[in-house]
Amino acid sequence: MNIVIIGTGNVATITGRLILQSGHDIIEVYGRNETAALALAQSLEANAVTHTKAITKEADLYIIAVSDDAIKKIVSGLFVKDKIIVHTSGAVSKEVLKEASINYGVLYPLQSLRKEMIHLPVIPLFIDGSDDEVKSTLLSFASTLSNIVQEANDLQRLKLHIAAVFSSNFTNHLYALTETFCKHEQIDFKALYPLISETAERLKQYSPAQMQTGPAIREDRSTIEKHLEILNAYPHLKNIYTTLSENIRSNAEPT
Amino acid sequence: MNIVIIGTGNVATITGRLILQSGHDIIEVYGRNETAALALAQSLEANAVTHTKAITKEADLYIIAVSDDAIKKIVSGLFVKDKIIVHTSGAVSKEVLKEASINYGVLYPLQSLRKEMIHLPVIPLFIDGSDDEVKSTLLSFASTLSNIVQEANDLQRLKLHIAAVFSSNFTNHLYALTETFCKHEQIDFKALYPLISETAERLKQYSPAQMQTGPAIREDRSTIEKHLEILNAYPHLKNIYTTLSENIRSNAEPT
Repeated sequence: MNIVIIGTGNVATITGRLILQSGHDIIEVYGRNETAALALAQSLEANAVTHTKAITKEADLYIIAVSDDAIKKIVSGLFVKDKIIVHTSGAVSKEVLKEASINYGVLYPLQSLRKEMIHLPVIPLFIDGSDDEVKSTLLSFASTLSNIVQEANDLQRLKLHIAAVFSSNFTNHLYALTETFCKHEQIDFKALYPLISETAERLKQYSPAQMQTGPAIREDRSTIEKHLEILNAYPHLKNIYTTLSENIRSNAEPT
Repeated sequence: MNIVIIGTGNVATITGRLILQSGHDIIEVYGRNETAALALAQSLEANAVTHTKAITKEADLYIIAVSDDAIKKIVSGLFVKDKIIVHTSGAVSKEVLKEASINYGVLYPLQSLRKEMIHLPVIPLFIDGSDDEVKSTLLSFASTLSNIVQEANDLQRLKLHIAAVFSSNFTNHLYALTETFCKHEQIDFKALYPLISETAERLKQYSPAQMQTGPAIREDRSTIEKHLEILNAYPHLKNIYTTLSENIRSNAEPT
């Protein structure tokens, strides 16, 4: 496959590396910022383009990996006729792409991708397409990139995106809050690494609902009171502590 | 060291296994419930006792691994003179033990321990003692059990416990909520495993505050609105989503 990567951010960079490693040819990288476009193009053994009008029409696949808001702007400046064009977003409908080609779809990486990554993690890919032929082409392309490839339509992808927000963005925020708390209180955040890993890895064997521990699930008021007394100095943390503890205590089904 | 384990729950079971593996002798296991006491005693190659009065006075170390509320009850029925007695709790002062011996302290495992565990995870141990000699004895004992051994007084241990609640109990609850959401919406929770692992492992290399991704940190209102529309069917999730998103957006320092 001859591929054009549109974008120079985290998703463009890591997706590009994955594609190159899997033996495909990236022929062009588009980026508004010339320095960024040149840098990524060079690392992906491709040419750099800085105007949408200059993007080649001769590729097999165009991958738009830009912020959700920027997708529409790209599409309005790009027409590739019957070549396949995809975006990589969890929350944007594939239909925004139909101005750019009659064949369009989605290649959604369900992973938190950062340019800094040295080793690529496992990246599950969710595929959608404007018709069965496009889907089938994208499914076989994606299976050269990842062992975990599934189909997901717009609504399913949006739900996966919500699940990712809860289990990754929000957990990362809790890690960040914990790190700052530890710094303020001069306790060793690193000592929590084994606990954090164990909690994340255990869910592959046991349902997390069955593995809940801590004062909230035990309804251990005396410990909770001791915690809240210290958290009086941290109103944001206290608010989150109370909200999540009540939710755990009520053993809330999310309905 | 000749050791008595008091308790038959998760912490008693896993601590006992760790101690046995490290080449110490567990001479007795105490549990009120005879079946549980016999089962754990057998697996730890020890004798079972079901009355505190019957616990031997001849051990070097007594480890109370019972629920916080039960520690006092145990202590009131046990006097071991100058033998070292410890509890394993993050939130209970070591001073509750002084009725039972003049030498007392804490052996706090900063890990989420479950009987079901087949492979023992890395278990950081935090030590406290009634005097320097007790501390020193416990530090060298703990270093036979774990590569991560530190001292922590009552207040430091309580703060570590709070940090553990945020980074383990609360993240596990978010995993549990996500799993239930996925079941209800018939999307594949397992597809999130690589993302969850990556988020947890990455903090060992990069500060989580620097690695925050998702719609809240991008202030991506349009995606947040799409999420909230679906979460209207899940009031508990919507409440948590809103609380944590606002907290991320305000990029709140925990002060």
